[in-house]
Amino acid sequence: MDGGTPTRDHNLRIDPRRLWDALMDMAAIGATPKGGVRRLTLTEVDKRGRDHFRKLCEAEGLTVTVDAIGNMFARRPGRDPSRKPVLFGSHLDSQPSGGKFDGALGVIAGLELIRTLNEAGVETEAPLVLCNWTDEEGSRFGHSLMGSGVWAGVYPLPKAYALADSEGVTVEQALESIGYKGEQTAECFPADSYFELHIEQGPILEAEDRLIGIVTGAQAQVWYDAVLTGRDSHAGTTPPLARRDALVGAARIIDLVDRMMRARGEAGRGTVGQLQVLPNSRNVVPGEVRFSVEFRHPDDAELAAIAEAFPKAAQAIADELRLSLTLTELFRFAAQPFDPDCIALVAETAKRRGFSARKIVSGAGHDAVYVARKVPTAMIFIPCKDGLSHNEEESILPEHAAAGAQVLCDAVLARANRRLA
Amino acid sequence: MDGGTPTRDHNLRIDPRRLWDALMDMAAIGATPKGGVRRLTLTEVDKRGRDHFRKLCEAEGLTVTVDAIGNMFARRPGRDPSRKPVLFGSHLDSQPSGGKFDGALGVIAGLELIRTLNEAGVETEAPLVLCNWTDEEGSRFGHSLMGSGVWAGVYPLPKAYALADSEGVTVEQALESIGYKGEQTAECFPADSYFELHIEQGPILEAEDRLIGIVTGAQAQVWYDAVLTGRDSHAGTTPPLARRDALVGAARIIDLVDRMMRARGEAGRGTVGQLQVLPNSRNVVPGEVRFSVEFRHPDDAELAAIAEAFPKAAQAIADELRLSLTLTELFRFAAQPFDPDCIALVAETAKRRGFSARKIVSGAGHDAVYVARKVPTAMIFIPCKDGLSHNEEESILPEHAAAGAQVLCDAVLARANRRLA
Repeated sequence: MDGGTPTRDHNLRIDPRRLWDALMDMAAIGATPKGGVRRLTLTEVDKRGRDHFRKLCEAEGLTVTVDAIGNMFARRPGRDPSRKPVLFGSHLDSQPSGGKFDGALGVIAGLELIRTLNEAGVETEAPLVLCNWTDEEGSRFGHSLMGSGVWAGVYPLPKAYALADSEGVTVEQALESIGYKGEQTAECFPADSYFELHIEQGPILEAEDRLIGIVTGAQAQVWYDAVLTGRDSHAGTTPPLARRDALVGAARIIDLVDRMMRARGEAGRGTVGQLQVLPNSRNVVPGEVRFSVEFRHPDDAELAAIAEAFPKAAQAIADELRLSLTLTELFRFAAQPFDPDCIALVAETAKRRGFSARKIVSGAGHDAVYVARKVPTAMIFIPCKDGLSHNEEESILPEHAAAGAQVLCDAVLARANRRLA
Repeated sequence: MDGGTPTRDHNLRIDPRRLWDALMDMAAIGATPKGGVRRLTLTEVDKRGRDHFRKLCEAEGLTVTVDAIGNMFARRPGRDPSRKPVLFGSHLDSQPSGGKFDGALGVIAGLELIRTLNEAGVETEAPLVLCNWTDEEGSRFGHSLMGSGVWAGVYPLPKAYALADSEGVTVEQALESIGYKGEQTAECFPADSYFELHIEQGPILEAEDRLIGIVTGAQAQVWYDAVLTGRDSHAGTTPPLARRDALVGAARIIDLVDRMMRARGEAGRGTVGQLQVLPNSRNVVPGEVRFSVEFRHPDDAELAAIAEAFPKAAQAIADELRLSLTLTELFRFAAQPFDPDCIALVAETAKRRGFSARKIVSGAGHDAVYVARKVPTAMIFIPCKDGLSHNEEESILPEHAAAGAQVLCDAVLARANRRLA
């Protein structure tokens, strides 16, 4: 077939060994003793990861720009400068005790794609842009998908700048301190499409022995901050009826979240991941507990029902224990379907390569979910061991990484070279 | 009556104003914005409190010695050096967000006793020793009543030295860094008796409008450290049945502790005061939770029943959630009755002064509980507002402080001047 179709690029093969080595090099930055990674967003370690990524991109002749929220864009020109670029990538920040592949895989696989093109001397019709989004994890400043959220206009830049970590350092201060508060305006620019390769972070692909997950969209989510206030008192002298124990209240709400999740069966998600007790002394009845609550579900109606029922049930628990409850909804987003054409293209390329694949809904939030609001988007999943992620033991097989990178490569090239109507 | 009987000292009156001013001076050391005190044991602030106390004692002509665990003893000679000294005092350390009077009252009232004797030029038959025990609260190193425990031979000095705070600083390092690792051997010396004045830290005296609590003993206690281990996993992708959520397990155990307490009615005490979640990220199912558990009861048999039932019930919760539980019993002590003669003396002196009084069991642990194992001991309680303690809002009335100090003074003098068989 002719140059406008994906077929021309069929035989471009990514280099599995080079991909794996690059993944391991990145994993060495912020490596933990247990074999994981601690590369919290906008820290000195994140800066080292970013600097390393920039160096590798520039070595491949890419032009790296940074926007005002620290998103990094590495551009490779196309034959037709008038065409909108094809975007791909993911994030380089990690959880406090995260794995080597969550985020890094999508970025490093994008680099491998570029290296494969350069090696083969292939020029694409449309420009290509490899993206590293800022603070996908949300574990330092409490708001995930920050960089892509600002880029997509979902989250205002001043609000993002003002967020502070537990030491009171704001996002803006952190960006300045590591030198990644860029010149470029932090807003979306015209793009043809966006593709993101990521580990599944769940057990499905591994259980069904599939190589590739064709991600059709992401589930709905609602996140809360909760503060329960009772009264500090002496653990030895305060009789049961005189107690206003905020931790007992939190315990019952944690159990409520778990029961509401289980009531939804396999699709249910409900988690209290973060909790702080005050004054946190072993012989003081706790007077205050602060904790996070989140629910997720593939179906908007189910999530809406949860978001309706949960605050009332939590308030009832607080009332019974004479505690005051402040429940703040941090954000709620609807289930986000991806672009049918991009989804079809991922399915088609996986098929062409003979990779076993299945359609899957993303359980996690991803930058792709926000980018999808502005640009036709799809995601590619590969299996991870035991479905384990946000864990230092997170692991994948090199051949799975290679398969995912190959599908990413094929899909991006097909899109960048497609005939435009 | 003659010089050997308490009567001689009847008309020695403590100075309520001087007592209150001295209490407020001490409260200024480590004062918190909310009107409480943060004077954690063996910190720089504790050092300032100790130095201030030493200065005041030496100004009254007392000889201050410090033992190897940092207990401070301020000695006033008696007419008969062959007599064993009468001890009294309490502790100057506080909870992380503690009140002005928990501990400080007993020490400062002891100082007021000395000042009253000096002012009146009264010499006692037996020597007097005012004590400031190290680390009564246990909130920094996790073991309360440390100084009196080592002194009474309940807790070995090397074990105490090895305890570390959350920053890894050991008790021995902390003692050295503030210069209070003393020369004197940390073990009990011959003593006639020990009297400790303290706020009730409970609601009973205030509710019954009594001035003085005649403390007949302390309730039995058992303290645990618990570690629940599950598996960190992604909050968005891990299905309910695949979860091993350590925080859900902790929540159910916290509820169990609360229910076991309430099942004992008014006398029941069960508290989880300290809890830490790992990795403590809002979108990670928690893989580990560490927390404290304590139970108290006036009746040894009831406490034994709790200590028998609780570990099994907690293990069952862990098993059901596929979590591993490590439950370490830190210590258990039996209900400690005080000395009948000392109790009678407190009752008698309160009666002589016309103060309304009642017998009461201490809900809290106190240094007196360990001292009582070696020396005839009694305690004197006064009311505190709303029974509130281990709280910055802890408060008492000056007239209650004065009444308590007067009873302490009368009882100590009676004991120091009594005719010996």
